Amino acid sequence: MSVNRQILLKSRPEGAPSLDNFELVERPPPEPGEGELLMRTLYLSLDPYMRGRMSAAKSYAKPAEVGQPMVGGTVGEVVRSRHPQYPVGDVVLGFGGWQEYAISNGAGLRKLDPKAAPLTTALGVLGMPGMTAYVGLTEIGKPQPGETVAVAAASGAVGSVVGQIAKIKGCRAVGIAGGAAKCRFVTDELGFDACIDHRAADFTQRLAAACPNGIDVYFENVGGAVQQAVWPLLNDFARVPVCGLIAQYNLTSPMGGPDMFSVLRKRLLLRGFIVSDFAAKRDEFLREAGEWLRAGRLKYREDVVEGLERAPAAFLGLLQGKNFGKLVVKVAR
Amino acid sequence: MSVNRQILLKSRPEGAPSLDNFELVERPPPEPGEGELLMRTLYLSLDPYMRGRMSAAKSYAKPAEVGQPMVGGTVGEVVRSRHPQYPVGDVVLGFGGWQEYAISNGAGLRKLDPKAAPLTTALGVLGMPGMTAYVGLTEIGKPQPGETVAVAAASGAVGSVVGQIAKIKGCRAVGIAGGAAKCRFVTDELGFDACIDHRAADFTQRLAAACPNGIDVYFENVGGAVQQAVWPLLNDFARVPVCGLIAQYNLTSPMGGPDMFSVLRKRLLLRGFIVSDFAAKRDEFLREAGEWLRAGRLKYREDVVEGLERAPAAFLGLLQGKNFGKLVVKVAR
Repeated sequence: MSVNRQILLKSRPEGAPSLDNFELVERPPPEPGEGELLMRTLYLSLDPYMRGRMSAAKSYAKPAEVGQPMVGGTVGEVVRSRHPQYPVGDVVLGFGGWQEYAISNGAGLRKLDPKAAPLTTALGVLGMPGMTAYVGLTEIGKPQPGETVAVAAASGAVGSVVGQIAKIKGCRAVGIAGGAAKCRFVTDELGFDACIDHRAADFTQRLAAACPNGIDVYFENVGGAVQQAVWPLLNDFARVPVCGLIAQYNLTSPMGGPDMFSVLRKRLLLRGFIVSDFAAKRDEFLREAGEWLRAGRLKYREDVVEGLERAPAAFLGLLQGKNFGKLVVKVAR
Repeated sequence: MSVNRQILLKSRPEGAPSLDNFELVERPPPEPGEGELLMRTLYLSLDPYMRGRMSAAKSYAKPAEVGQPMVGGTVGEVVRSRHPQYPVGDVVLGFGGWQEYAISNGAGLRKLDPKAAPLTTALGVLGMPGMTAYVGLTEIGKPQPGETVAVAAASGAVGSVVGQIAKIKGCRAVGIAGGAAKCRFVTDELGFDACIDHRAADFTQRLAAACPNGIDVYFENVGGAVQQAVWPLLNDFARVPVCGLIAQYNLTSPMGGPDMFSVLRKRLLLRGFIVSDFAAKRDEFLREAGEWLRAGRLKYREDVVEGLERAPAAFLGLLQGKNFGKLVVKVAR
């Protein structure tokens, strides 16, 4: 415990980020003050929203600061404690960032039971991405039995849960993913009714064929060309929870959105959200998703990268769809 | 009663419609069959949605048919009847179209009491436009006291009601209208807090100045340049009932909508609707709006054109904002 390796945001990207935007440094581990504790990072979550934090643009959360560690959710072990509720040895879900050690005053921490579920699930299927899928689909998408739910990035941390909950709710689940292997996983392992490779030359036609009754809920993770292919398939009164736009995050000028006429004519509902807007649903989510997981109705796949130093490259890969499943960095050796 | 003058849709417009798209013809008045009645049109409503009916494009309602009378809401007097519920002399709200006489089987008719309110109000403030404002604002916009509600076409049939209900609900109401006279009417007569002339060179700056706390509800009637000026002023969690896009109705190619990033970052809600989606709210609307009207809390202005033959020119003027208040054609002499 002599060194705290950190990945700092070195500079803000213009367009696509690169390795040059990050810097690995070694610092002395911090000492917890009164009422604080020191977490040793076991796992760091890598998520698309972090691209937004790299930019200075106004958004729902403050940007990461240049010269400071990148922000991020973590599973950590309490290794020093001056906090009465979190003794040494506790394992906690927190927001330690891209570093080996982080101080916390306890705010926003949640204790994890390592016997209840694998620790990494607290960053994925039972964590922020899983809850994002759950609240976006159930609170905004409101899928009804027999309807068709479409979701892109369908093998990813959010999309995989969206489609599986859609199936649990009695819907037809149509995934969109990059490449044959991911599509096979989405249908064969996750149980979606169909999954279309957005890289296929006839993607638009295949998507239409997979949605013979149109699309009632489009869970928007990606924007861009996928959105354009989905839009004409939306049914009257379709709902579009807008969760992410990963295909557009690196654009340097705004991209026009869908024609508002379609919104009017089809009486569409579009609603942007982030998971914290539905914080009151956390217990409900953990109870329901936990039951589905134990019953084998909710499956997940993780893409675990070893070593904090590999986080920047892994994150850049995430933005290009190179990961396969929820991307997590195993930090502590 | 020897002749039924009708305005037919002669051809479908490409881009902006013109007088050539309409044709005035004289036909023998139809005879009601068993269970039918004949209405003599007293007033014909002219409304922006009719532009959509002139086109063959798929929409929420079937297009008007070439060679047939243009469709439209009417106040009519029953002049022949073989329908037990509607004796001769009844005055009814119906959908008689652009003609002097129309047959009905009673479906969708509503009897009007000429003593309760001026008959034309059934086409405006107490009719489809008023109810459109009411349901769009209360069911989708959900304005909270102290919030700012912005609406374009603010002196028109829908916009005027939107802003006045916003005031009743304790909001700041900001109108947008074309020209100084309309803007004065909107503030001085209707009681909006501000009204900005969208033709002013510094429209965008003036609108921002009129919304010092941003915009929480934007009731979308117009689209186009007004939408672009409003968009940056939307607050987090703003709601956008999408009711109409009159500035875009004559475009021959689709116009890109607002940047989806704003929808995501600000957690916006956009929802297209038409008044019939909320048909179950009709009694509530009539009760509440009727009370507001009698109490002087809801004011209205009508732009009454005399003579069916002037309907096409009046309608073309409506699309250009030339009317001032709810546009109605007085048909029966």
